[in-house]
Order: sequence, then structure tokens, then C-alpha cells
Amino acid sequence: MSPVYCALVHHPVVDRGGEEVTTSVTNLDVHDIARSARTYGLRGYFVVSPIEAQHPVVQRILDHWREGSGKKRFPERAEALSIVEIALSVDDAIARIEAREGRSPRLVVTSARSGVERTSYEMAAARFVQDPRPTLILFGTGHGLSDRLLWRADICLEPIHGPTDYNHLSVRAAAAITLDRLYGRESPRNDPI
Amino acid sequence: MSPVYCALVHHPVVDRGGEEVTTSVTNLDVHDIARSARTYGLRGYFVVSPIEAQHPVVQRILDHWREGSGKKRFPERAEALSIVEIALSVDDAIARIEAREGRSPRLVVTSARSGVERTSYEMAAARFVQDPRPTLILFGTGHGLSDRLLWRADICLEPIHGPTDYNHLSVRAAAAITLDRLYGRESPRNDPI
Repeated sequence: MSPVYCALVHHPVVDRGGEEVTTSVTNLDVHDIARSARTYGLRGYFVVSPIEAQHPVVQRILDHWREGSGKKRFPERAEALSIVEIALSVDDAIARIEAREGRSPRLVVTSARSGVERTSYEMAAARFVQDPRPTLILFGTGHGLSDRLLWRADICLEPIHGPTDYNHLSVRAAAAITLDRLYGRESPRNDPI
Repeated sequence: MSPVYCALVHHPVVDRGGEEVTTSVTNLDVHDIARSARTYGLRGYFVVSPIEAQHPVVQRILDHWREGSGKKRFPERAEALSIVEIALSVDDAIARIEAREGRSPRLVVTSARSGVERTSYEMAAARFVQDPRPTLILFGTGHGLSDRLLWRADICLEPIHGPTDYNHLSVRAAAAITLDRLYGRESPRNDPI
């Protein structure tokens, strides 16, 4: 598996009316997506926010669980949160991946909206194997990633649909399903990586 | 699709040491799993807690989002939460499904622990089609469903694994992935139900 990273983007995202906004970081987004990312073997999870005043809040969550009493009581939380980093922007995250991996990552975006040039999860997974450069998957808060980010993507994944027309999953659920569709294995004992 | 229900169980579940405990209801579990359940076409989502003092708290969350200002601002939340019910026990949920559907549901349990007689998601989905009786899928809070519930199940699903040995997903993520594996369709436009 080539190196995979994900980022939870708090800016630029859109609100209900399609206007570009910046959302607040929430505690459970940090935890839930870290645990999902760790389960599926991701190398890093960037919490992306341009609001520098929120960075110490995230850092305090990370410090609490990665050290001291949090780590003692819940060692598996410490393990999941060990892959979390704070970034000021998507470009900041890209630059750090490039510095670490020696190659810039392919940019994969997710959206609940349909549109042209959406790629199925199967096809995306096949492309990841064909070209093993690093991957950065972006998840949007609010009402989703801004078009500015969608336009930059190498791959735009299909919206997640069930057998209904309701597609308002939480970002925590959408991230978990996306990682499972791309990297999930039903029976690892029979199919070890 | 035959009628499917899920339940988030706060008792009987186990703690880290395997002791049977009762956990507290949390706001985001109600929201996230309701949104996932609605996405995948479930007919109902039971929040199961024997602590009657917590029922008005859940009811207040439901009332806020299903009516008045919450509904006005976030109509899709109202839609998801419309399928949520509070139940005192798993048997209470089973009885209500039986009263509504005219047949008792098959009981499907989920567990992060491996063990004998686990059923793959593919095989479970095939069995649901063969015998279209109602289905109730149980998700455990804390460190998972008590053995008392696992033993009663008609189907015990395989633990969710990625390509790592880390399996500490949040219950919100695990529920989303389970429903997607059982009822997800990549391209509903090509494969309508």
C-alpha cells in the first residue's frame, strides 16, 4: 500500500447556500477520523484550519490523549491520535507530505454532490495500485469542499449512496465508508497485506 | 429490501475488562447513526437504554430537531431523526418491530472481537434476500455487546478490519461501514432498488 494521508478541511468549504465559509474544529471529528484512518493504515491525518486560534485547542486534545492520563486509560486512542497533525491549509498539508515522501501526493476529493468526472471507488483503488505515489484524500466539513478544491483534484470520488435518495451522512460516517471502500478487506486472515 | 432496523445498545455491553455495564447516551451517536440509517433505507433506529432518566434527554434532542427551529434550519436532520425511537431494552425493540411488521426480526449482532461462527457481509446480505423477514442489527457502545446478546443472535457479523491489526473504530464509524457493506450501492443510477 503506497502512503495514504487524509485531511479534514475546515476551509475552504461551503455552507448550505454554497457560500465559502470556515467551520470550527470539533473534538469528535479529530477522534473518530483518527481511529478510522489508523484502522485503514493511513500514514497521517491532517486537521486543516486557517484559524490559528483553534490550533492550541486541537493540540490540547492531542496532548491529553497522547500523553499522561488519557494515554494510560485509553492506549488505543493514543495510537490513533499519534497520526494527527494540524495544518493551516491544504497546501500546507501537501507540502509536508512532499517533504516526507519525496513526491507530491495525488489529490483525491470527496463530495456528496453528483457531477461530471466522478470516479468509482473500484477504479480509484485500481489507479492507486498502478501508480504508487502518495495519496491525499480530502474530506469537507460544513456542506462540503469548495469548488476551488474540487477543481484541483486528480480524482473526484463518487458521492456515497445507499438505496435511497438521502445523502446527508456525517463527515465522520462518510470518511469511514470512503476508507473502507478504498482500503477495506473483509477477511484479512485470508488476504494479508 | 425487507424491513431493516438497527439499535444502539447501552445495556448490556461490556467495559474494557469485560464486565457488564450500562453506558450513557450521547448526542452525536443519536445524530450520526440516524443519518447513516436513513441513508441506507432503514425503517427505524432504536436508542436502547434501561436508564429511564436518560429518555427525556434523548426525547429533547429529538423534539428540538424534529420540530421548530431545528427543523427549519436543518430539514435533513429532521428527516433522519424521524426514524429514531427510544427503547428500554433490546426485547422492547424486538417487540415493537414484531407488532409493526407482523413477524419477529432476525437478530444480527456486530462485534470487534473475532470468534467462531462469524458471517461475512456478503453472505449475510444474501441471506437477507433469501428470507425477507425483518432484520434488527445491534451495535454496542462501550467495549461492545455483551456475550448474552451475541449468543442470542441469528447472525454474528465479522469484525471490520482494514489492512492493519488496529480495530478500534468508533461505533459511529462501525455502524456506517456495516450498513454500507450490507446495503451500499456504488452507482444507484445503474442499479436501482
